[in-house]
Amino acid sequence: MQAARLHEYTEEMENALQIDEIDRPEATRSDHIVVEVEGAGWCQTDNHIIEGMWTDYVDQDLPMTLGHENAGKVVEVGPEVRTVEEGDKVICHPVMTCGVCRQCRLGNDMYCVDLEFPGLTTDGGFAEYLLTNERAVIPLPDEVDTTDIAPHADAGITAYHAVKKAANELNAGDHAVVIGIGGLGHIGLQCLEAMTAAEITALDIKAEARELAADLGAHHTLDPTGQNVEEEILAITDGRGAEQIIDFVGADETTALGPKIAGSGGDHHVVGYGGHVHEPSQTLVDGEFSYVGTLVGEYTELQELVRLVERGDVELRTSQYDLGDINTVAERLEHNEIEGRAVITP
Amino acid sequence: MQAARLHEYTEEMENALQIDEIDRPEATRSDHIVVEVEGAGWCQTDNHIIEGMWTDYVDQDLPMTLGHENAGKVVEVGPEVRTVEEGDKVICHPVMTCGVCRQCRLGNDMYCVDLEFPGLTTDGGFAEYLLTNERAVIPLPDEVDTTDIAPHADAGITAYHAVKKAANELNAGDHAVVIGIGGLGHIGLQCLEAMTAAEITALDIKAEARELAADLGAHHTLDPTGQNVEEEILAITDGRGAEQIIDFVGADETTALGPKIAGSGGDHHVVGYGGHVHEPSQTLVDGEFSYVGTLVGEYTELQELVRLVERGDVELRTSQYDLGDINTVAERLEHNEIEGRAVITP
Amino acid sequence: MQAARLHEYTEEMENALQIDEIDRPEATRSDHIVVEVEGAGWCQTDNHIIEGMWTDYVDQDLPMTLGHENAGKVVEVGPEVRTVEEGDKVICHPVMTCGVCRQCRLGNDMYCVDLEFPGLTTDGGFAEYLLTNERAVIPLPDEVDTTDIAPHADAGITAYHAVKKAANELNAGDHAVVIGIGGLGHIGLQCLEAMTAAEITALDIKAEARELAADLGAHHTLDPTGQNVEEEILAITDGRGAEQIIDFVGADETTALGPKIAGSGGDHHVVGYGGHVHEPSQTLVDGEFSYVGTLVGEYTELQELVRLVERGDVELRTSQYDLGDINTVAERLEHNEIEGRAVITP
Amino acid sequence: MQAARLHEYTEEMENALQIDEIDRPEATRSDHIVVEVEGAGWCQTDNHIIEGMWTDYVDQDLPMTLGHENAGKVVEVGPEVRTVEEGDKVICHPVMTCGVCRQCRLGNDMYCVDLEFPGLTTDGGFAEYLLTNERAVIPLPDEVDTTDIAPHADAGITAYHAVKKAANELNAGDHAVVIGIGGLGHIGLQCLEAMTAAEITALDIKAEARELAADLGAHHTLDPTGQNVEEEILAITDGRGAEQIIDFVGADETTALGPKIAGSGGDHHVVGYGGHVHEPSQTLVDGEFSYVGTLVGEYTELQELVRLVERGDVELRTSQYDLGDINTVAERLEHNEIEGRAVITP
Repeated sequence: MQAARLHEYTEEMENALQIDEIDRPEATRSDHIVVEVEGAGWCQTDNHIIEGMWTDYVDQDLPMTLGHENAGKVVEVGPEVRTVEEGDKVICHPVMTCGVCRQCRLGNDMYCVDLEFPGLTTDGGFAEYLLTNERAVIPLPDEVDTTDIAPHADAGITAYHAVKKAANELNAGDHAVVIGIGGLGHIGLQCLEAMTAAEITALDIKAEARELAADLGAHHTLDPTGQNVEEEILAITDGRGAEQIIDFVGADETTALGPKIAGSGGDHHVVGYGGHVHEPSQTLVDGEFSYVGTLVGEYTELQELVRLVERGDVELRTSQYDLGDINTVAERLEHNEIEGRAVITP
Repeated sequence: MQAARLHEYTEEMENALQIDEIDRPEATRSDHIVVEVEGAGWCQTDNHIIEGMWTDYVDQDLPMTLGHENAGKVVEVGPEVRTVEEGDKVICHPVMTCGVCRQCRLGNDMYCVDLEFPGLTTDGGFAEYLLTNERAVIPLPDEVDTTDIAPHADAGITAYHAVKKAANELNAGDHAVVIGIGGLGHIGLQCLEAMTAAEITALDIKAEARELAADLGAHHTLDPTGQNVEEEILAITDGRGAEQIIDFVGADETTALGPKIAGSGGDHHVVGYGGHVHEPSQTLVDGEFSYVGTLVGEYTELQELVRLVERGDVELRTSQYDLGDINTVAERLEHNEIEGRAVITP
Repeated sequence: MQAARLHEYTEEMENALQIDEIDRPEATRSDHIVVEVEGAGWCQTDNHIIEGMWTDYVDQDLPMTLGHENAGKVVEVGPEVRTVEEGDKVICHPVMTCGVCRQCRLGNDMYCVDLEFPGLTTDGGFAEYLLTNERAVIPLPDEVDTTDIAPHADAGITAYHAVKKAANELNAGDHAVVIGIGGLGHIGLQCLEAMTAAEITALDIKAEARELAADLGAHHTLDPTGQNVEEEILAITDGRGAEQIIDFVGADETTALGPKIAGSGGDHHVVGYGGHVHEPSQTLVDGEFSYVGTLVGEYTELQELVRLVERGDVELRTSQYDLGDINTVAERLEHNEIEGRAVITP
Repeated sequence: MQAARLHEYTEEMENALQIDEIDRPEATRSDHIVVEVEGAGWCQTDNHIIEGMWTDYVDQDLPMTLGHENAGKVVEVGPEVRTVEEGDKVICHPVMTCGVCRQCRLGNDMYCVDLEFPGLTTDGGFAEYLLTNERAVIPLPDEVDTTDIAPHADAGITAYHAVKKAANELNAGDHAVVIGIGGLGHIGLQCLEAMTAAEITALDIKAEARELAADLGAHHTLDPTGQNVEEEILAITDGRGAEQIIDFVGADETTALGPKIAGSGGDHHVVGYGGHVHEPSQTLVDGEFSYVGTLVGEYTELQELVRLVERGDVELRTSQYDLGDINTVAERLEHNEIEGRAVITP
């Protein structure tokens, strides 16, 4: 089968991945599942992987097929799989978990001690077929378009996971700030709308992103390059500041905004990860301010997000690309030229 | 009456405060209370105030009497005070709150929009008498020694508040790391012991502090200057890292330890505030790691702490000083030469 | 001034209250507030008070003016009131709390040990003027119609309070059942819609109530007299049962429904209180099922509800009556003949 | 192998079970584990099963081997088992879960839609060998006596689970009442002590049970037959009532105590299940009182309990019996004549 693989870390996106002919994976464990990939979202993290930014955090064996936002059709199941069968449409939670370790038992899929992460630590979904397991797949109704829904597998639940944590702290009328209305942010914004009665301000430096935010229900939009965000947020919130901030950018500039626009006890959820957090300890103490790191969501959160999608509460802006055009996608995202989410259709 | 007052910000602790003769405060509101101060704890924050480190965060009118850890005897009450009367022993929560704003109504005393903070924004308790209000005082049984209990008014509940947040996340057998076994840390350690079934490691660079920690129930103690803390914590926790870290120092070195010794989803509670937090956003994301700022506790938490003290679960190491020796205390704490908590007895 | 007062407990609603001429109340404490009543909602609890159903739970001194859902205009303030002034429009949280006891400090207004409850334990708002205090009033924008908003003071926050507890347990796509779409239920339903992404089924024996529920956003409606509720809920939820049940009726029949329609770990929130809860302990154990009693909401919850009303998320169906017609209202509600909420305009 | 099996439901405990010779179970799935049973606790639920009290709640195929509190040595593992091997000592969580359904993924083992419950729905551990699976077993250090620890597999985690829910609501100095200091209650009491700084009152009609409670750390003990429990609890709590009640009996008399001794917002956790809950809805509403059903704990809770046992925080009073004496145990427990927990050693 064909697969788009990373052979060495590089900053050059135009030749980042190579289309190789490799063997189709097979189910060798009782819970294995092979999926024919129908859609595989391209994620900012793919650019980061290509640049070698994850080598300090995980083990990677090159060459490796990237692609961790996958959906498609089941074509083979291990002998003890009970919940799906050949022909079923599925969306794939990004990681294969053991189901036995304490973290799995607590529901913290991402902390599994025996984690395999296709597209990050093993072969992923920018290929005709993907090997995953029963604990990773969620069956979809036949009427769902797997290409459209694929980006929810990672972009979606990462946004949902951050929003769910913030939502637990948001009373009716409280204020939430969403920073960055891109691939993740535009999903997060819709989840906030559906799950809370909070008032929402969206921040983005691109005018189209702010327009999208307003379309999707943001009550206020701000342009950090042209407006004084601190003054504006204090004015909108009658001087108290925002209760929750969800930062899908994670750059030095955006993390520095947090303490200025947060109210007492406010949280700044760090989802994006370009830059640093850097503040005096006293600033955290004085305002009981927190920087809260947040990762990919859990399997059960992907189930919940799929329900939101089925209800029509969350819509995704996607554009489709052939496997052969994958480096074009990599390059365009690097230059911030992708509208909505790019989905590879192998 | 006599009062120890700050006339100008300075780095020179030996002449920091001046003993002035000023008027005794009087109850001018229906809920005012005048307390004859019998004990007023000296806090690291007093040194920070003297150095001008709080001018960016609050308004201060000099000269001002310092002292925010107060206990003593009620000598005058406003006409509508119902819960205490002249002669009652009381410990004073550090702030006077309005009781009407939304934050007060939510129980978040420290976020009161009309807050007065004796010793930080108005005259405090390094004086013969202190003006406070009914919402700040907690009656004490006659047998309690107000001089001994005074430091709980701030050091105590600040430690308790941080520990209570951490305790909510600690299952039986989880691991907690306490950084800094000084005035606050030795209280926090005992609170952790009383309120959780967690396993506890105490970190301190001073051998006596580590001995105190072991005495007070720490299961392990580590010396960050002589031991590899990261390796040790991973060994103690079977490789998973600590679930909760409570940092009573807040220096660059201690906040940098957090991500290295925390397990997945771990929190680093920032209580002390000498330095900065500084990490790549990716580090927070990858481990779902958080820096959680934490301030003085609530009035109800001081009630809870007083119960712990009455049960014998928390004991305080104190040493007493006359009002006239107050600058000696300031200087000794600056040089880390105070054992336990210094209490001024005006 | 005129006031509608209860002189003795009775089952005869047509002569329940008597219009008396009594003195206008005056502000005698520093925090007292006198409100000119512009709207006072009639509540099922008023019928229960008239029948003597509260004598086992609280002390009542007859004659007493009823009316605990009040809004109007401030006409007098005590000397230390800071947050409202004469002429301000306000809605009144039903109880006057002390602000000093531990329960007040925890935010649990209804548990205040020094509680006064106008209309239940002291004179209420079916009168030209009402005595309350600063901790009870929430200022309203000038454009708000106090007559329209009055029922939120009790019906509203009681519904909101129950829904908020349930909402904390409802993930996106979970199922909530609302029993009884009357005065409280139709508010609760809208709050659920605004604050969660749950799927909602509304139960009522009246066809108009079910139509109202559908109008207000219920995804399913059921008639307990004509349909098998257990079978229907199991069908709607793919056999798992409802995660949360909010019972605004509290009759023997409705509390008995709970264990049949709840999924594992489900809660049955008891808001209405006509009948009993009665089940084998084993039923609670086997399904980890709970009966959760729920009372009037907190002051801060009334603030949140007011924000929902201002956003247009919650609308109230009301009808207005003169003070002289008050017994007609009592009688009609007894016979279930009031559409929406009846508001007395003294 | 020998196994003690129920052939028909009966009230006659002296002939309840029959010792049969049956085939040793074998591992037929990839995750199956066969355990040589070294200890199997006898539980009140075994008496209830024999009486047919569970036929309304689960499907049972007679004859069936009882016994759901099991520990022993692994003698066979399925081909994909990774975390234990032949010869390992293990304690068995009572249920075999699928690890794939949403409830398993949320950590709610007892709600698994594909649950097998040895000793309740399939053959249990009153036999030489037991069939279970990898998700059910927790490895134990070699020095642990499996016979001593066996009752924690069900009695222990059921008590722990209830206590953990209560502990989350107990601030330092709050009051907890434990009803029934038998097999479960004496464990629950020790867990409360280890995990909270609450003040504890133990209730039991047997003097030895009250003495045991005092030994294990109860601050107060009461005899419901000889003392006015309501008056005593109000006196102990300065009139406010208990914050949390954990009822290991669940009889009509004990559930009726709840509303009388609970403070505002108090919870009555129903663990035992002999009788009914029966109260006016108004009683639940007025005090925001709840009856909270609580079942066997989760796998991760058994891990936590094992850590408490290893730390020495929880000790178990057990007595050992041969498989042939099993009906004697059944009869003695029926007459309340077992001290501590009876463990069968097949």
